[in-house]
Amino acid sequence: MARVLGLDPGLRRTGWGVIETAGNRLRHVGHGVVATDSGASVPERLCALHEGLVEIVARYEPDEAVVEETFVNRNPDSTLKLGLARGVALLAPALAGLPVHEYAANRIKKALVGAGHADKEQVALMVRHLLPGVGDATADATDALAAAICHAHAAGTRAHWQPAQAASGAAR
Amino acid sequence: MARVLGLDPGLRRTGWGVIETAGNRLRHVGHGVVATDSGASVPERLCALHEGLVEIVARYEPDEAVVEETFVNRNPDSTLKLGLARGVALLAPALAGLPVHEYAANRIKKALVGAGHADKEQVALMVRHLLPGVGDATADATDALAAAICHAHAAGTRAHWQPAQAASGAAR
Repeated sequence: MARVLGLDPGLRRTGWGVIETAGNRLRHVGHGVVATDSGASVPERLCALHEGLVEIVARYEPDEAVVEETFVNRNPDSTLKLGLARGVALLAPALAGLPVHEYAANRIKKALVGAGHADKEQVALMVRHLLPGVGDATADATDALAAAICHAHAAGTRAHWQPAQAASGAAR
Repeated sequence: MARVLGLDPGLRRTGWGVIETAGNRLRHVGHGVVATDSGASVPERLCALHEGLVEIVARYEPDEAVVEETFVNRNPDSTLKLGLARGVALLAPALAGLPVHEYAANRIKKALVGAGHADKEQVALMVRHLLPGVGDATADATDALAAAICHAHAAGTRAHWQPAQAASGAAR
């Protein structure tokens, strides 16, 4: 059994979601959003984001973290702002010693819905189907849970492969 | 007297420099570079950067921090990477409760050399002239010291204005 923390970073709102995996079964543990005060300075907002994430890592004690690697925006200023939030989102679980994985947004969508260009509603629908306990999570939180599910699937696939690879290695 | 920490952030190398200001006099206190291992993962490198900066803030106890606001790059991927490092560079002094200021690179150059498009050598030359104790600092460190000097000048100018504004307010 492993706990995975998914993060969908943004300076204004960072979605987070925690799931538990046991074999190919998934369980919803918790989710939410770390929102920062738009009236505060950027360094103050990064502090609030950092402190929120450190608290979530301490409370849920995940084994791994997954951060959505959002498409770079056409607007360089937005790309840079997103980078600030992503830097802080990658830092909090890494400081706690967790392995931190990054998946591109379209890979996460493909893992859940089967199409890299699925919209947020389709992703949310699939997250609710796979994790019945989710309830009325916002899109930021379902995106974060989707990142965690995508990693659980990828890790599960690797786990299935391992015995086969070991067997073929032994047969050589 | 105030201590100012200047930072020139980058994922690979983040330059830092500490100066002391008393009126319009400047003194060099320390400088260096936090370099991260190019073989490590991005989250690990952000951790190393964070830990390096937290140590510098604890050791030098600055009153304020200044972060160079580098031009966004034409390459969106580089812009995002720079954003990761800048997020972490803004965070460390903010977590210590310091006011954190940002100045555009061309404003810093203009404050030191008189031209927004001065090259790194001209900036370094001026930093060495203003802070004779600097010695053989690398360009990352002289850029960080230049950011601190730029802020000291701006803050000094504001301090000179304040009595005049107060006086004109009283006269109204």
